[in-house]
Amino acid sequence: MADSAARRWIGFRPEIRIIDCTIRDGGLMNDHFFEDSTVRRIVQGCADGGIDFMEIGYKGSKGLYKPGTVGPWRFCEEDDMNRVIDGLDLKGLKLSAMADVGRTEASDLLPKSQSPLSLIRVACYIHQVPGALDIIKAAHDKGYETAFNLMALSSAPLDEVENALELVVQSEVNAIYVVDSFGSFYGEQVREHVQRFLKFAAPMGKTVGIHAHNNQQMAFANSIETIVAGGNMVDGSLAGLGRGAGNCPTEFLAGFLHNPKYRLRPLLETIRDAVEPLRAKIQWGPSIPYFLSGLLNRHPREAMAFESGTSTEDIVSFYDRISM
Amino acid sequence: MADSAARRWIGFRPEIRIIDCTIRDGGLMNDHFFEDSTVRRIVQGCADGGIDFMEIGYKGSKGLYKPGTVGPWRFCEEDDMNRVIDGLDLKGLKLSAMADVGRTEASDLLPKSQSPLSLIRVACYIHQVPGALDIIKAAHDKGYETAFNLMALSSAPLDEVENALELVVQSEVNAIYVVDSFGSFYGEQVREHVQRFLKFAAPMGKTVGIHAHNNQQMAFANSIETIVAGGNMVDGSLAGLGRGAGNCPTEFLAGFLHNPKYRLRPLLETIRDAVEPLRAKIQWGPSIPYFLSGLLNRHPREAMAFESGTSTEDIVSFYDRISM
Repeated sequence: MADSAARRWIGFRPEIRIIDCTIRDGGLMNDHFFEDSTVRRIVQGCADGGIDFMEIGYKGSKGLYKPGTVGPWRFCEEDDMNRVIDGLDLKGLKLSAMADVGRTEASDLLPKSQSPLSLIRVACYIHQVPGALDIIKAAHDKGYETAFNLMALSSAPLDEVENALELVVQSEVNAIYVVDSFGSFYGEQVREHVQRFLKFAAPMGKTVGIHAHNNQQMAFANSIETIVAGGNMVDGSLAGLGRGAGNCPTEFLAGFLHNPKYRLRPLLETIRDAVEPLRAKIQWGPSIPYFLSGLLNRHPREAMAFESGTSTEDIVSFYDRISM
Repeated sequence: MADSAARRWIGFRPEIRIIDCTIRDGGLMNDHFFEDSTVRRIVQGCADGGIDFMEIGYKGSKGLYKPGTVGPWRFCEEDDMNRVIDGLDLKGLKLSAMADVGRTEASDLLPKSQSPLSLIRVACYIHQVPGALDIIKAAHDKGYETAFNLMALSSAPLDEVENALELVVQSEVNAIYVVDSFGSFYGEQVREHVQRFLKFAAPMGKTVGIHAHNNQQMAFANSIETIVAGGNMVDGSLAGLGRGAGNCPTEFLAGFLHNPKYRLRPLLETIRDAVEPLRAKIQWGPSIPYFLSGLLNRHPREAMAFESGTSTEDIVSFYDRISM
């Protein structure tokens, strides 16, 4: 086993990057209404913790949303971002935003010289790949790094996935992402997908990442699996804050990776000061309904409705309904 | 990949057994004081769910405990067990009890013909192996199946572990268990241990099992890893009830394994009726302090004290104290 993957990363692999998605994915639980002080505290915590990227929200098109229905982190306007990071020492931390195909126009992106953003992550479903390529090109033309996040991979036909990857790696994109939107993947499935993605990415000098969900409490394990299989970008969020069952906890990744630049204590301080207080208003994390939606490879919307507290169902009637 | 482990178990491997430890491991959170109705409901749910074994408690020596300080499931006296299962249809469900070396005498075990128990699981630390062999022999002589659970494997010297396994597989024991007492193992470590255990067990016709803890939310992933590596006994508990961060949820195992004898719905009913109500008195499941004790490979006692609600620390001062 001397040459196994385990032995190779028990030291550390300097090319591995952590992307903290606390505000971006967590925004799906509160319509992106975070206080400035919360966002600022998390930027600071990620910087102090040695995190590589912090995804601060979505680059949404303003015209698509009724004013007042969503908070500022659905749009990541440069004024908002500059205000919350004003005066902070970002150390090596770079900011990223997500662009959903169909909800972001190329014109929503300012030239990089006018923005604190470094990375645009373009998210799409399998039928939206041409739209993703347009945004990837626009983002590169404006000076950003990019990643391609193929959502709902667990329900996409494999031949279409391979066609998509073949197309996408010919773009300027820097990374392609396995996205377990429904939290349905077990470790071996993740490994096979990462190997599939690497087959296309590696010859073109691009890397592979994972965005995991925690429905079956597999988010951390699947992120490790990705690293062992050769992926170099892993998404987390502090205390796992994210849609539904949430994400892989950023602090778990920092604890697991052996790169001394990652520091656990500032992340714990940030969880204490800025993330745990959010539980007064929003609930996230594994539960039986999220487990069932992951097991059945379904969108978490029904489980989110159950967990909202307005449901009259119990876990058995919920199971009866969604498993039929 | 046509011949990979994944392909071989995507159908199902009939020799895999689930052992539900809800009452046994959960008893560490309430000094084994469960209502008869709770235990009975869980026996019934496990039977209806097709579970193979239910571990109903410890076979402790009465003289070691001050009367009244611990409940009946620390002792599993035959009268108590017979009372809670009276009239139930156990279907294929067998009962087991744990015998801790140093807290159980061979004389605590009645002949199997006088007991509803089928399996005695002998738990010990690495320095107690000779004591474990004595109990294994006594249990077999009295007609029981046995398993050997090597606790705190993550802090035992590997050469001693191998010596222990070499000795133990020469006994009549039916299974040897990888026990991740501190919830510190990642998947590759589990795989290597299972392979190591199998190296000794397989030539002697014995099987390998895992008892995982969920400190780093790896309990389910590590149980799957064990199955993929060839282990055939996996421990769970309903809703993960168990000491500290808890165990692998039994319902996750039933959902994951494809053996049609396992039925999810009765397990969910049992969680609803008998396990979730326990949260009014006891708290279990992953948290930052349990994550830290798993990460640092420590006994969960400090984290349990933190979570008891009597601590004046926060997660940062807790980290400062236990990481020094």
